[in-house]
Amino acid sequence: MKLDLSLSNLESLFPADFNDEQKARARTLFLKNLSVEGHRFYGGKMQTLPKCGIYGFNWLNVWYTPGISKISTTIRGDGDSSFALSSRGNMVAVVSDSTRVLGDGDCTPPGGLGVMEGKAMLMKYLGGVDAVALCVDSKGSDGKNDPQKIIDFVKMAQHSFGAINLEDISQPNCFKVLDELREACDIPVWHDDAQGTACITLAALINALKLADKKLSEAKIVLLGAGAANTSTARLILADGGNPAKMIVFDSKGGLHSGREDIKNDKRNYRKWEICEKTNPGKISTMDEAMKGADVLIALSTPGPDTVKRSWIHSMAPKSIVFACANPVPEIWPHVAKEEGAFIIATGRGDFQNQVNNSVCFPGILKGALLVRAKKITDGMAIRCAHSIAEFSQKRGINPGDIIASMKETEVFAVEAADVAQQAIEEGVARLKLSRDEVYRRAKADIEASRAIAEDLIKLGHISEPPPEIIEKALEQAIAEIRK
Amino acid sequence: MKLDLSLSNLESLFPADFNDEQKARARTLFLKNLSVEGHRFYGGKMQTLPKCGIYGFNWLNVWYTPGISKISTTIRGDGDSSFALSSRGNMVAVVSDSTRVLGDGDCTPPGGLGVMEGKAMLMKYLGGVDAVALCVDSKGSDGKNDPQKIIDFVKMAQHSFGAINLEDISQPNCFKVLDELREACDIPVWHDDAQGTACITLAALINALKLADKKLSEAKIVLLGAGAANTSTARLILADGGNPAKMIVFDSKGGLHSGREDIKNDKRNYRKWEICEKTNPGKISTMDEAMKGADVLIALSTPGPDTVKRSWIHSMAPKSIVFACANPVPEIWPHVAKEEGAFIIATGRGDFQNQVNNSVCFPGILKGALLVRAKKITDGMAIRCAHSIAEFSQKRGINPGDIIASMKETEVFAVEAADVAQQAIEEGVARLKLSRDEVYRRAKADIEASRAIAEDLIKLGHISEPPPEIIEKALEQAIAEIRK
Repeated sequence: MKLDLSLSNLESLFPADFNDEQKARARTLFLKNLSVEGHRFYGGKMQTLPKCGIYGFNWLNVWYTPGISKISTTIRGDGDSSFALSSRGNMVAVVSDSTRVLGDGDCTPPGGLGVMEGKAMLMKYLGGVDAVALCVDSKGSDGKNDPQKIIDFVKMAQHSFGAINLEDISQPNCFKVLDELREACDIPVWHDDAQGTACITLAALINALKLADKKLSEAKIVLLGAGAANTSTARLILADGGNPAKMIVFDSKGGLHSGREDIKNDKRNYRKWEICEKTNPGKISTMDEAMKGADVLIALSTPGPDTVKRSWIHSMAPKSIVFACANPVPEIWPHVAKEEGAFIIATGRGDFQNQVNNSVCFPGILKGALLVRAKKITDGMAIRCAHSIAEFSQKRGINPGDIIASMKETEVFAVEAADVAQQAIEEGVARLKLSRDEVYRRAKADIEASRAIAEDLIKLGHISEPPPEIIEKALEQAIAEIRK
Repeated sequence: MKLDLSLSNLESLFPADFNDEQKARARTLFLKNLSVEGHRFYGGKMQTLPKCGIYGFNWLNVWYTPGISKISTTIRGDGDSSFALSSRGNMVAVVSDSTRVLGDGDCTPPGGLGVMEGKAMLMKYLGGVDAVALCVDSKGSDGKNDPQKIIDFVKMAQHSFGAINLEDISQPNCFKVLDELREACDIPVWHDDAQGTACITLAALINALKLADKKLSEAKIVLLGAGAANTSTARLILADGGNPAKMIVFDSKGGLHSGREDIKNDKRNYRKWEICEKTNPGKISTMDEAMKGADVLIALSTPGPDTVKRSWIHSMAPKSIVFACANPVPEIWPHVAKEEGAFIIATGRGDFQNQVNNSVCFPGILKGALLVRAKKITDGMAIRCAHSIAEFSQKRGINPGDIIASMKETEVFAVEAADVAQQAIEEGVARLKLSRDEVYRRAKADIEASRAIAEDLIKLGHISEPPPEIIEKALEQAIAEIRK
């Protein structure tokens, strides 16, 4: 029996004696093995190609010298014309110093290339946005990673891009980098780990609360983990109407509140301190206490499966909502949370129900920002995007096992783009004023074209099929590793 | 009568009463007008696209999380594996601070995007190399362009690329930037304005001397202009066997020689000082004197047409060789140099015989360097590339009106790549040892694929034809401007 090129019959090829956990491990090992051989076969994932017509060599005189001279002088006279006259208008830099690459920590600067190129691929494939991976060395002369170096780098590079996507920069450097660059740059600077995760989490929360028939302004919300993602999530929830008196955020040392001198005294943690000042007026410091009667738990913390205790879930209010989003293993297994009475459970994984994944968000939000040449992506735009995704999902129907659209529902991205662009115009951060319909139409066309080209490159043989041997071998090795 | 989409019948559409000079001006105006409208129509020239197969959404788990994790950890364990496992291995950054953009001087950072993207397009179209335009702001806190900023920027970015192409950085900053980065980086740093122009000039000179039946080691060579290009040309000529005692280089203040205290005292001009020390032992200081009996004039100086005097050409040795390469107007019109007895005349322009254009060189030299993962592009590799181009041209036949291949002879690039790669291996700067044939085969395949994809994108309608109106209008406007 052979593995289908779409990998859809993978599960059926595992030995019959594998239990569910062995199958899950084998699946991950297979994907990792195939990833290495696949990347080697293709030499990476992304390429550059002309998007303009070259009808013989005479056109090089149009696209390059001497015709190009008028592009140089036109942009010199009007810097903003660079968005229309160069690829800048649809081009995003995915910038990372590779110090916190997905689940793998500091991977050295080139170690982040696989992830950042992957991000660039998703931007194009899902959002019709061109993107380039820039994994940079942020180490200063003392050998330590210096946030100022990333800031200086992006400031220098910003004139070549329509937006910057910051990614996988370790804490607390990521806060300083994002906040300074959002101020300093005249193009959107988006931190997907923080803002993107916060956006999609808010979207999922809106729908989960709807299904539980609860109001955001009345819900008691506990956030476990106070990293870039969860602090941003807390900020967006509060900005969207969450009640600060009913919110408690935890870091590894306990509940955040105005008595946390350790946070107050470390200036790099100003984002956490903002939360200390606003939330948890009762200065609750233990999860045992906080979770009693809580409506919502949003965990973005240490991988589980026992980071979140059964008893905590058990003590929550009726129709409780549990987001256990650590990767690769959620803070509590969904079936365990269910046993303890959780009404809705979401995780970061695609192999469980209710995946909360920022891939549903960033391609659309960036496309919308680019189409109206936004100068910023404000919290307001992120919140609008969350509502856009939530409403899209409601329209096609939601239930406790399916609260939010997945990235496979590709129609969502143009809708997000259209809504986000309108918010940018309303907030006065857009350079172009386009109608919602115009943005929707253009986003949809670009996204469909991106995928059509990728498919045609395969059809015409410009992208070869990977040799079946590397797929089979990846599977054999995965099975052998489990057997060991 | 209509303009053909290939623009091949352009000349025939100018009014019958236009003289040659008016036609030439109208042609340039047309190309500039069409460039602006064409760039606007397409929104720039380059896009990013997947180069790996995506056979449904399951493959995103291979190309992104969770499979990607093994790419991150593999590269962390072995940094050099990033060349094979990411697009880095075939990806070049075209870096400029836009302070000397082609003929237009300082164009502000985004003002260089048209040219740098054009360069990226030529790299892909001619060399099968992926490339990204990075126009950076190099101004320091004092508002002056600081070469150290470009150096720091490239050092930070180098881990994402297989090579760096520096471009259009003003003097003398460009010298410091190139020389420091060549030392500091573990990937090739190529300065096309200097090394690329020097390489193609040497190639043209080799063939011109062959046609004149003269030896490089015996030729008296005068270089007019001591910018980045000509100082590099002088260095390559000397390294390839030119006689320093028979070479005289001029800057705007006169002949370079060991008595030029002004150059000695300005440390930023160390490249010029090297030439002062080595050449012109007779300390000749005027062109009138230097040109007497000269075999070769290489002018890369102020645009003409009267920068080079008739009398200078007249005083040269028999079978004299004149390269007048300033753009847009050569230092002396070719027909004037001919009248004064020049045997071979070359310019930088495509509309005269013997264009000396670094587009014939950089796509091939970079492709060769990338395929063997070279750590540097040495002067030796540039010289080998010059000989490769010269020999390719000889094989297909040369004559005084056609001394060197043009970029339309696209077979030249794979030959260059193969020769340059072998030189890199011989000099010990290559990470991979591939046979000449293997490099040739892979370069040829990549180059042919690049052009085939660009053609298929047009054929399938993914790249639309520009509206005929914008082409017609560009022509009408050009004619109207000449009539004014």
